Amino acid sequence: MNKKIVTLGDVMMRLSTKNKERFSQASGFDIVYGGAEANVAISLAQFGCESIHVTAFPSNDLGYAATAYLRKFGVNTDFIQFQEGRLGLYFLEDSAMQRASKIVYDRYDSAFAAFDGKLLDWDMVFDGVDWFHWTGITPALSQKAADLTLDALKAAQDKGIIVSADINYRRNLWQYGKGPLEVMPELIRYSHVLVAGSSDFENCMDIVEDDYEDACRQAQKDFPQIKYITKTKRESISASHNKLRGHLWNGKEILKSTTYDMPNIVDRIGGGDAFLAGLVYGLLHYDDQTALEFATAASVLKHSIPGDANLASVDEVLTLMKGENVGKLLR
Amino acid sequence: MNKKIVTLGDVMMRLSTKNKERFSQASGFDIVYGGAEANVAISLAQFGCESIHVTAFPSNDLGYAATAYLRKFGVNTDFIQFQEGRLGLYFLEDSAMQRASKIVYDRYDSAFAAFDGKLLDWDMVFDGVDWFHWTGITPALSQKAADLTLDALKAAQDKGIIVSADINYRRNLWQYGKGPLEVMPELIRYSHVLVAGSSDFENCMDIVEDDYEDACRQAQKDFPQIKYITKTKRESISASHNKLRGHLWNGKEILKSTTYDMPNIVDRIGGGDAFLAGLVYGLLHYDDQTALEFATAASVLKHSIPGDANLASVDEVLTLMKGENVGKLLR
Amino acid sequence: MNKKIVTLGDVMMRLSTKNKERFSQASGFDIVYGGAEANVAISLAQFGCESIHVTAFPSNDLGYAATAYLRKFGVNTDFIQFQEGRLGLYFLEDSAMQRASKIVYDRYDSAFAAFDGKLLDWDMVFDGVDWFHWTGITPALSQKAADLTLDALKAAQDKGIIVSADINYRRNLWQYGKGPLEVMPELIRYSHVLVAGSSDFENCMDIVEDDYEDACRQAQKDFPQIKYITKTKRESISASHNKLRGHLWNGKEILKSTTYDMPNIVDRIGGGDAFLAGLVYGLLHYDDQTALEFATAASVLKHSIPGDANLASVDEVLTLMKGENVGKLLR
Amino acid sequence: MNKKIVTLGDVMMRLSTKNKERFSQASGFDIVYGGAEANVAISLAQFGCESIHVTAFPSNDLGYAATAYLRKFGVNTDFIQFQEGRLGLYFLEDSAMQRASKIVYDRYDSAFAAFDGKLLDWDMVFDGVDWFHWTGITPALSQKAADLTLDALKAAQDKGIIVSADINYRRNLWQYGKGPLEVMPELIRYSHVLVAGSSDFENCMDIVEDDYEDACRQAQKDFPQIKYITKTKRESISASHNKLRGHLWNGKEILKSTTYDMPNIVDRIGGGDAFLAGLVYGLLHYDDQTALEFATAASVLKHSIPGDANLASVDEVLTLMKGENVGKLLR
Amino acid sequence: MNKKIVTLGDVMMRLSTKNKERFSQASGFDIVYGGAEANVAISLAQFGCESIHVTAFPSNDLGYAATAYLRKFGVNTDFIQFQEGRLGLYFLEDSAMQRASKIVYDRYDSAFAAFDGKLLDWDMVFDGVDWFHWTGITPALSQKAADLTLDALKAAQDKGIIVSADINYRRNLWQYGKGPLEVMPELIRYSHVLVAGSSDFENCMDIVEDDYEDACRQAQKDFPQIKYITKTKRESISASHNKLRGHLWNGKEILKSTTYDMPNIVDRIGGGDAFLAGLVYGLLHYDDQTALEFATAASVLKHSIPGDANLASVDEVLTLMKGENVGKLLR
Amino acid sequence: MNKKIVTLGDVMMRLSTKNKERFSQASGFDIVYGGAEANVAISLAQFGCESIHVTAFPSNDLGYAATAYLRKFGVNTDFIQFQEGRLGLYFLEDSAMQRASKIVYDRYDSAFAAFDGKLLDWDMVFDGVDWFHWTGITPALSQKAADLTLDALKAAQDKGIIVSADINYRRNLWQYGKGPLEVMPELIRYSHVLVAGSSDFENCMDIVEDDYEDACRQAQKDFPQIKYITKTKRESISASHNKLRGHLWNGKEILKSTTYDMPNIVDRIGGGDAFLAGLVYGLLHYDDQTALEFATAASVLKHSIPGDANLASVDEVLTLMKGENVGKLLR
Repeated sequence: MNKKIVTLGDVMMRLSTKNKERFSQASGFDIVYGGAEANVAISLAQFGCESIHVTAFPSNDLGYAATAYLRKFGVNTDFIQFQEGRLGLYFLEDSAMQRASKIVYDRYDSAFAAFDGKLLDWDMVFDGVDWFHWTGITPALSQKAADLTLDALKAAQDKGIIVSADINYRRNLWQYGKGPLEVMPELIRYSHVLVAGSSDFENCMDIVEDDYEDACRQAQKDFPQIKYITKTKRESISASHNKLRGHLWNGKEILKSTTYDMPNIVDRIGGGDAFLAGLVYGLLHYDDQTALEFATAASVLKHSIPGDANLASVDEVLTLMKGENVGKLLR
Repeated sequence: MNKKIVTLGDVMMRLSTKNKERFSQASGFDIVYGGAEANVAISLAQFGCESIHVTAFPSNDLGYAATAYLRKFGVNTDFIQFQEGRLGLYFLEDSAMQRASKIVYDRYDSAFAAFDGKLLDWDMVFDGVDWFHWTGITPALSQKAADLTLDALKAAQDKGIIVSADINYRRNLWQYGKGPLEVMPELIRYSHVLVAGSSDFENCMDIVEDDYEDACRQAQKDFPQIKYITKTKRESISASHNKLRGHLWNGKEILKSTTYDMPNIVDRIGGGDAFLAGLVYGLLHYDDQTALEFATAASVLKHSIPGDANLASVDEVLTLMKGENVGKLLR
Repeated sequence: MNKKIVTLGDVMMRLSTKNKERFSQASGFDIVYGGAEANVAISLAQFGCESIHVTAFPSNDLGYAATAYLRKFGVNTDFIQFQEGRLGLYFLEDSAMQRASKIVYDRYDSAFAAFDGKLLDWDMVFDGVDWFHWTGITPALSQKAADLTLDALKAAQDKGIIVSADINYRRNLWQYGKGPLEVMPELIRYSHVLVAGSSDFENCMDIVEDDYEDACRQAQKDFPQIKYITKTKRESISASHNKLRGHLWNGKEILKSTTYDMPNIVDRIGGGDAFLAGLVYGLLHYDDQTALEFATAASVLKHSIPGDANLASVDEVLTLMKGENVGKLLR
Repeated sequence: MNKKIVTLGDVMMRLSTKNKERFSQASGFDIVYGGAEANVAISLAQFGCESIHVTAFPSNDLGYAATAYLRKFGVNTDFIQFQEGRLGLYFLEDSAMQRASKIVYDRYDSAFAAFDGKLLDWDMVFDGVDWFHWTGITPALSQKAADLTLDALKAAQDKGIIVSADINYRRNLWQYGKGPLEVMPELIRYSHVLVAGSSDFENCMDIVEDDYEDACRQAQKDFPQIKYITKTKRESISASHNKLRGHLWNGKEILKSTTYDMPNIVDRIGGGDAFLAGLVYGLLHYDDQTALEFATAASVLKHSIPGDANLASVDEVLTLMKGENVGKLLR
Repeated sequence: MNKKIVTLGDVMMRLSTKNKERFSQASGFDIVYGGAEANVAISLAQFGCESIHVTAFPSNDLGYAATAYLRKFGVNTDFIQFQEGRLGLYFLEDSAMQRASKIVYDRYDSAFAAFDGKLLDWDMVFDGVDWFHWTGITPALSQKAADLTLDALKAAQDKGIIVSADINYRRNLWQYGKGPLEVMPELIRYSHVLVAGSSDFENCMDIVEDDYEDACRQAQKDFPQIKYITKTKRESISASHNKLRGHLWNGKEILKSTTYDMPNIVDRIGGGDAFLAGLVYGLLHYDDQTALEFATAASVLKHSIPGDANLASVDEVLTLMKGENVGKLLR
Repeated sequence: MNKKIVTLGDVMMRLSTKNKERFSQASGFDIVYGGAEANVAISLAQFGCESIHVTAFPSNDLGYAATAYLRKFGVNTDFIQFQEGRLGLYFLEDSAMQRASKIVYDRYDSAFAAFDGKLLDWDMVFDGVDWFHWTGITPALSQKAADLTLDALKAAQDKGIIVSADINYRRNLWQYGKGPLEVMPELIRYSHVLVAGSSDFENCMDIVEDDYEDACRQAQKDFPQIKYITKTKRESISASHNKLRGHLWNGKEILKSTTYDMPNIVDRIGGGDAFLAGLVYGLLHYDDQTALEFATAASVLKHSIPGDANLASVDEVLTLMKGENVGKLLR
């Protein structure tokens, strides 16, 4: 029986320059749709899971197009709500070599930020669900979005669903009057798997430790339901060349994955979401170390695929983990 | 000596689908930058005038790209201010045949809407200027934008500059708490040339007359500085086929231009702005009837050019007026 | 409650030349996926119906991509089977003016032609379904496909579902040893709404009548369950310019729709499928004449949309029927 | 046995703007290769003739690419010479509606203009050849090119080959010190089929007659070997809409072809060359009136095909002449 | 005097995704035409040889387009036969980094597979020919294709032509009832130069040796006419980064070429065919070691060129062998 | 106060193949406009300087488009003259890996080569200017262009403006009858900053020294006003991978910059111009070593940007110098 996963979060249209052009050179943009949580949903759908994404879109042609995009890649869109508002956007100036890539966000006042979820029947949403995933972006958008997250988490807890949270602290969000420390701890309290780096620990959990393992231990002390804390370590040699390794603290120790060398990157956006999707799949199917290796290999494959979401299959991830068919031509 | 024109208004990025695709089919957008007033500025620059466009852009790469776009087409961008905010956008689903084209606006909270113009030295802006053009879109955006328009109009009056106003009433603007009748009459009072149709008369000047000429006469009674009132009459046989004629009331009578048949339209956006730019040029250089014919022919040529702005030259417009080289191959 | 429709048939990848290039000039193709029956399913999904398409695809990346395409446009793909075989293809040399467009079919031995449907639970497929649509293309492909059609029709009859059949006789199919007269009459016997022209009557029903109404009457005599017979009448002035009218015999008389003039055609492929989808929707919601007008207007809008399938909404069709917003710019 | 035709003339790279963009908007060009004579060679190759094009190209990658282009479309390139010099170019700003299309020529000092043909063995070139075609563009380019034309004509006469000449007078050529009346009459003296309009008669043959038939008669008096004089009559309603008719004086009378209405033109460049290629084929295979109809129908089809050359087959031309399959969808 | 080479084999249309998209993301394909033997023919034509490719195409527009493609790149297409059938296709999902590239073949029942060659006058085909090249793909397609190969080989032997064979064993071919060991040995018996790796030795020649040199010696024992056996050794670090070296057994020893590092691969398809074309050219012009170096350098350059075939010139290959101009900018 | 820089030189349209295609494969070109001196002007405009480029363009649409291009990227085009002539062109076959890139120049007889500058008021051009930059390409084009350079240099000297000269010796220019040693020394005599490598020293200054520092010292002896001599040292591992270091002789010693590794090059054209622009900016704002580092880092960033000119900002260059944000994703 395939696993069933629910994700919650805003989805933006991404408008990216072509052929490494700068914004001032662009006479057109390529478009995809993505968001930290929807990217996880799409990736899990490629893994054969049943993915349900919950969000709100503007009831206009852009909202419908975003929905069609999710549906195309296998995500269940039955619980998406259409309402007043705009579609969040982000503009991407893709880069190469030493030049940094740039994102210009234009996501304020999206339909999702005003989504109160009153019409959502969480009981129906979570029916038969194995896993719920949220990120720190949602409660950073608006009070309504923070409330919605809490509602979802309570409903998930009632159903005994595993919850993962990508803390994902971003300073330039959190504009609605509250700070992360006023909001995030309560939400984290409902979560079992955390994606968190040092800045996340500090800003969202008030934990300042030099050592990552110490921070993890402290986190579990403060939030005893936490079972796993994870992060990727990315070394950015250039926009075209990164190295990547995954870390997973499982309550006992820090596991480390293979380090992958990634020259000739096609698209690094969503690499973290691909990792998390891989980890969700991995923890649902494998032991801890294998889960971590699966997550890291999934993230590596994402870097070879244009767009925000990982479109690799379970087979492709496993094959890479075994070091087979690497970059081969499969006939 | 070339004429010098100032325009004031917001500039948006236009994102349009390609090859008549619907929004749900699009995997990319073509982009140009435009706005009712900037389109006039670009067109007049092609006519050899010195065009100055006054606006505010976000101080990010999108704002700089929009500035570069205006500069490319010959518009003086020295008085553009860069500040906090976002770039207004609109999405265009281009069409053909009986299917209607669609615009999804996403222009609220643009940097321009928050532009207070305090740093602008209108005296310097208007130095040596012959003509100032504004539209009803600006005061519809925000109180600040309405105030800015009034400041500009007062400064223009002090310099004895001719002022044109495209009333351009749009119901879905005017969201900041004031209605057009509270704002527009005071602004129209400073304007000598008006683009206005029946809906504009009613909504912005409280003039309801069955007959266009009666409405014009009443307008002049209410706003005695008005010298010309103009409009285009467009018959929309299909998205690909329109007919166009210009009307000009010159205080004495309604002049009518040649009616042009326009099958095989390439891009109808900005047809009205091209007309107005042609009229500005025409009234500065020709008699009333010739000015009107120039304006209409200019607008026709616009329909053959992709993008928001008319890129035809004075020679091309005059040649079309004479019925020469129509659709020929010039070697 | 939205109507529920099932369609059955092969889906091909369409590879079309760009910018009116000939095949010999092409260095690339645009691709969409379509088929006479799936086009109907997609169009009905845009109308808000629940569309289920039943087909078989090769269990390779092309089959998965075709599935994703259907899902994107709102079609339920739960009953699609993946198996050995190839994906049917057709190459389209798009044209303009007096030059004819050309299709090179490459559809033999598709996975669908070998689809025996043994694993299909028709009871589940037809659960709560209002309408079933098949075409004469399917039984022309292979004995297996003909048998499958008969199975489906029997199951539909058991459920009391309305059945429509687009006879769609094509000489260059029917290569598997049987002729249409050996196969089609038995299938038509289960169908209530027929799309048929004179060639269809003759080749698939052995009815030769000079007059269309006479043919319809004879058809009903031979196949008494028939309630409606319909066809479109297309006048082809050029590849870019057609005229279109719909005819509907309702057992009493021939109703005729408005004749639409269609210059500037964007894509005429699937115009008939769009008509039939419109008719299905129309007969489920309106009186006969309105249903016919809806069908014809839907087909007209299809001609403005690239790809095989009609992506117009019910509102857009109704608006065209009223003659409103024709080719307008909707802001 | 297929007919064998030799053409002589310069071939340019054509760089054209896309999507009706103006030059100032273009960020890229589409390229094809063409020239008045090579266009004839390509068209005749599609008709199944053996076409040999004689020219000189620069011995660089652009010259080789131009050769590959001719070869792709079936032209024998064995007698093309590679030497010092540049490839002639022309830039095309494609248009629509009332806006005129524009060509910027950049063809001076091409390798062909410096081609003295000394190494050419005309005896081998003309072996088994039925027809030789040249145009007035060649002798207008340089003294060398004029001499080359004369050499070719003498060799053709020795072989008893039919010769056609497209006079094609263009004022902005003829820059090398001689005028057309000093050069053209001697060359015309070797030609049996002439493409000539009034301006050609006047500028190249010193014949000024109000009436076309009178001019033809006078031409035959002055150049008694002339058997046919022909021209197309194009009415330019817009860049997107022309009407076309062919005229053929056969020594006795002026034959006129069907007039074709051509809205939705795809590419009008080379329409005259397509006509002439059709006439060559027609006069080699049919009676005079049929030849003329073939030529006109061929030219009409050219207008639906992007690029300089007509890629229609004999079957397609004959089908159009019969009014069959006009704009149909051939499956 | 240029060398004359004949190649025999099927040619497919290749449809490849763009910008590293996965199949499910593609809205279009780039197309080229290629096949293991035709790729050799094209490459040798760039080297200045006279290449003749013998194949059968469907007598439709796709077959004509494939022919035009070969002709464009200098291949003599005079002996290509047009007949019933379809054009073989293959779909390529291009990749980067660790992700494997994928090919979906769709080549069964091609016109070539049914090509019996009865109408071919091998005497005319092989007139003046220096070299004949075939591959193990052809006899794997059908009995007719195997028979055709044998006919060709006998004719070549009669003329004393050097024969090369790329064994190229592929398990998923050989579907017509015979296995390679029933067919290949007889064909190999006519060949002097073999491209073979261990899997080829085992599957097509029944030779199982751990050591490559031993296998070569055994092959020569079994097939005494063999003079050279060759293979490339490719190390696949990623889809974007391979290393390549050539091996050549000349009856005495295994020669090894320089090993080339190939990061930033543009297109690896056809790398082996480029190597073989280089070897044919090399053995016809140089000593063994130089021939091998030429072959390897040719293959390296192929990896920088999009499409199936190597378009590098002899000069470019020689320059790379000398280590000159590597990646330079030649003005 | 922003620095003001004048550059003088020809500007060409660059036509480049896409996706690493060879010329023979191209069906279109991407276009930008560039020239050694204009590239410097554009780069300095991105740095916030006031850049004035002096050149002559043909008074046709291509000349106007080139002007618009410069203006778009912030260059003052007020002193550009429009006159008879053609626009210089160059065709670029972009490459990857070991394959060399190729440029086919087609720049002779450009409008600029015939530009006598008589109408230029150098006093006005140089008003308030800090720096003047010329290159050895200009005097190599024509006598007129050499004279123009001298006029400019004299005027610059009168104003006390710093002068830089990129010697840039190219053998295939200098076709007008004079050699570089007859022309260049007189021009170099007015210049304070020289870009020169060994070939430049020898061909343009008659200085042959094995050691670069010795050559610099000798140059200063011969041309005592010289203050700085500079060059970049590029190691070309492949077309996709170079290493780069800058050298600056400041009259006392040779300073060397950091060596940058540059795999994954996007566009190496204009790398030298970007270096020089960086050096101009650097010498105007920083100490010698910092200026050199700024120049080298600027050049590195250029290699990541498509087109001829560097579009990096001062901030981006400084950030790279600090090793910050290298290839990061800036949100």
